Amino acid sequence: MVPWETYLNERKNQFVRELLELLSIPSISSLPDHKPHVQSAAEWIEARMNRSGIESVQIMPTGGHPVVYGNWLHAPSKPTVLIYGHFDVQPVDPLELWENQPFDPVIKEGRIHARGASDDKGNLFIPITVAEAMLKTQGGLPVNLKFLFEGQEEIGSPQLPNFISANKDLLACDLVLSADGSQWDEDRPALVLGTRGLTSVFIDVQGPDHDLHSGTYGGTVANPIHALVHILDSMHDQDGRVTVEGFYDDALPLSNEERAQIARVPFDEDEYLRETGAQGVFGEPGFTCYERAWARPTLEVNGIYGGFQGPGLKTVLPSTAHAKITCRLVADQDPSGIADRVVSHVNSVAPTEVKVTATKAESGAMPYLVPAAHQGICIAATVLRDLYATEPYQIRSGGTIPVNSLFLQYLNTYTIIFAFGLRDERAHSPNEFFRLSSFDRGQRAYGMLFNRLADEFRRD
Amino acid sequence: MVPWETYLNERKNQFVRELLELLSIPSISSLPDHKPHVQSAAEWIEARMNRSGIESVQIMPTGGHPVVYGNWLHAPSKPTVLIYGHFDVQPVDPLELWENQPFDPVIKEGRIHARGASDDKGNLFIPITVAEAMLKTQGGLPVNLKFLFEGQEEIGSPQLPNFISANKDLLACDLVLSADGSQWDEDRPALVLGTRGLTSVFIDVQGPDHDLHSGTYGGTVANPIHALVHILDSMHDQDGRVTVEGFYDDALPLSNEERAQIARVPFDEDEYLRETGAQGVFGEPGFTCYERAWARPTLEVNGIYGGFQGPGLKTVLPSTAHAKITCRLVADQDPSGIADRVVSHVNSVAPTEVKVTATKAESGAMPYLVPAAHQGICIAATVLRDLYATEPYQIRSGGTIPVNSLFLQYLNTYTIIFAFGLRDERAHSPNEFFRLSSFDRGQRAYGMLFNRLADEFRRD
Repeated sequence: MVPWETYLNERKNQFVRELLELLSIPSISSLPDHKPHVQSAAEWIEARMNRSGIESVQIMPTGGHPVVYGNWLHAPSKPTVLIYGHFDVQPVDPLELWENQPFDPVIKEGRIHARGASDDKGNLFIPITVAEAMLKTQGGLPVNLKFLFEGQEEIGSPQLPNFISANKDLLACDLVLSADGSQWDEDRPALVLGTRGLTSVFIDVQGPDHDLHSGTYGGTVANPIHALVHILDSMHDQDGRVTVEGFYDDALPLSNEERAQIARVPFDEDEYLRETGAQGVFGEPGFTCYERAWARPTLEVNGIYGGFQGPGLKTVLPSTAHAKITCRLVADQDPSGIADRVVSHVNSVAPTEVKVTATKAESGAMPYLVPAAHQGICIAATVLRDLYATEPYQIRSGGTIPVNSLFLQYLNTYTIIFAFGLRDERAHSPNEFFRLSSFDRGQRAYGMLFNRLADEFRRD
Repeated sequence: MVPWETYLNERKNQFVRELLELLSIPSISSLPDHKPHVQSAAEWIEARMNRSGIESVQIMPTGGHPVVYGNWLHAPSKPTVLIYGHFDVQPVDPLELWENQPFDPVIKEGRIHARGASDDKGNLFIPITVAEAMLKTQGGLPVNLKFLFEGQEEIGSPQLPNFISANKDLLACDLVLSADGSQWDEDRPALVLGTRGLTSVFIDVQGPDHDLHSGTYGGTVANPIHALVHILDSMHDQDGRVTVEGFYDDALPLSNEERAQIARVPFDEDEYLRETGAQGVFGEPGFTCYERAWARPTLEVNGIYGGFQGPGLKTVLPSTAHAKITCRLVADQDPSGIADRVVSHVNSVAPTEVKVTATKAESGAMPYLVPAAHQGICIAATVLRDLYATEPYQIRSGGTIPVNSLFLQYLNTYTIIFAFGLRDERAHSPNEFFRLSSFDRGQRAYGMLFNRLADEFRRD
């Protein structure tokens, strides 16, 4: 029997050609004109999964962009693993910054350059090829697999919660593997244990009912910008701590072991400042930069506006002023409850001489944290350790990936992010690329992980 | 000899037709396409002054829109009075709010509706007609007159300071009468003793050198909006007092007599709130609303912007944040010195984790205040008292009229604002109008004033 690794090796060129095909479909989910292309990408994946021997393959409607589902469920008593990924991509503008057309993939020096190469088509294609290799060489898989690939991740997966909720039986599993993510760098693997949640509040301040002449009226009626800056300045102390009452109360504290794991991750402050162009690192006292980004909640004003913004001067006492605020949240914090606290804070400090409205956004996103001791994490760590010959870092993402929390909420299943993009591959930016070496490594990793999960994963 | 009043009465229809002609010239100084129309208005005035018997009439270049000059200087030993006005007008948009075309003047119910009717073509035309009436009926004028009409008032008179400075002898006079202004209402006259000065400061805050993902970086580098709101909130206390060190130091305090004069002016708070749409009056404690607007300096944030302003959310930690500030100043305050104090304040409270730049605008405007006991004010008050049968209010304007200070600075001459617009005539707004009754009253007032100045004004 040909080993699955040999099958993958012998068909390397074919797989790459196929990936280029998938990458040439401009499946930009945010642009209505590209809706047919998102559908085409779904159809391409449907056909490809069918060829690989995956069963029950189907494009399923969500009310928005479709999902592609498939499974192979002939490993009784073995765990069932759901593989998640997405076939939609970000827009490409500014197009003039691309060195090749974003949907005309080019291979240069071992890298595939195209929109979606790293995020997420390259990563998504890996487990399909591994399943095929095992099915064609061994006639079966070591674990039961389900595939759920969506076409709306880049627009926030608006219909996915309802879809998952409505298809709990179809999607039921022991573990989710997300093929959407990355490793630390070419030599160092990482397991992402957590992502932050999100909640948002809009503040609108109304002063006079129209812009007033600042000569005629300046000094006699309250300026809504003055009120807004007073409100916003009250939300942090000078050290960068959030002063909204109870803001940190529910945030799960870091254990000593967690802090030690985070401290293992290399941090180069000079590099960090070059990367951000900031004057220095700055944030909640008592925490390192990664602790602040990964394990502590934040409150950021994302935008502020009011009055005159053009060149030069306009001597106006403006009618309104506005701010948009988002909070990133960590484990055990409730998005809706935190938004309520921010709204209460605004109302408690709002000057009475203007009309202040603080509005909680309808949707938030739950924070996500998988215990470092979870058997899925331990097994994935073993695979990564074997492949990279080094212990994976235990990191988190400061960003928000709602799908991880959705699987936990609706399927009661943790998600292990198991993907092989690298952080420098310009996801969401011009000249996105994916390393062919990562494609190879990802294939080996997925095959090894399926085998280990079959041997080591204990179902509840 | 026909009295000058009779001359004016007999030619009323002709003067109104002529004013409509002037109003039909779209002399919008701020729009480059209208530059030829500003020139046409100058030519119309030049021709009209020549017909009236005014001498040395000439259009003079300024480097920008021209001025029109003329004089009559045959009253030896009598005072020389410079009459100021402007023939340029504000833009007309939004055009759809006009009931007639703004440059197709319409007379309805004793009012001329057109852009510039009240500000300032109607007012400017009055002293020309009065000079003509006296010259044609008496063969001379009771005082020496100089006329200076400019075409760039609505864009801040950028070339006027240099023009006045370069033509001090040509413009030398004992008193300036400004035909740009208004009376309190149809029954109550007012003398505007002061206008506020202006200075401005721009604040630019630079955080990271590009917008950052608020998930990846939120909480680890300083947000420039947070820094900006901290700076701005430090500039006022909760009662609305400006907290910039030394801000009020040089502001000329109000005397008890001045406060009493201001208290005479009717103030209807309900009406004021209807007018502004504000929730209430608000400002520096210890002063009435008019005192705040007319005799106290202010610091207003006219505009603020940074980060995302579109609909919905964008989870960005912005690169920059900006604010535009103007201060209205009162007598004895120096625009440049006050701007320096604001800049110092910004620098003293600026968080060090971002780059803060406070920039003083190049140009400011001096505050202006003519003493209530000045003989020009006393003589003008007598004329107004005679005409309206009531004592004129002594008011000020909260706005800024740089030209008054320019005449004081370069010609060492006070300006009496002597004009007959009314405050409800929608200057700068759609459907501007001017009352024909004000045109009549203004003519009588100017004639009476010329005669009284000849008799009562003592030259230094």
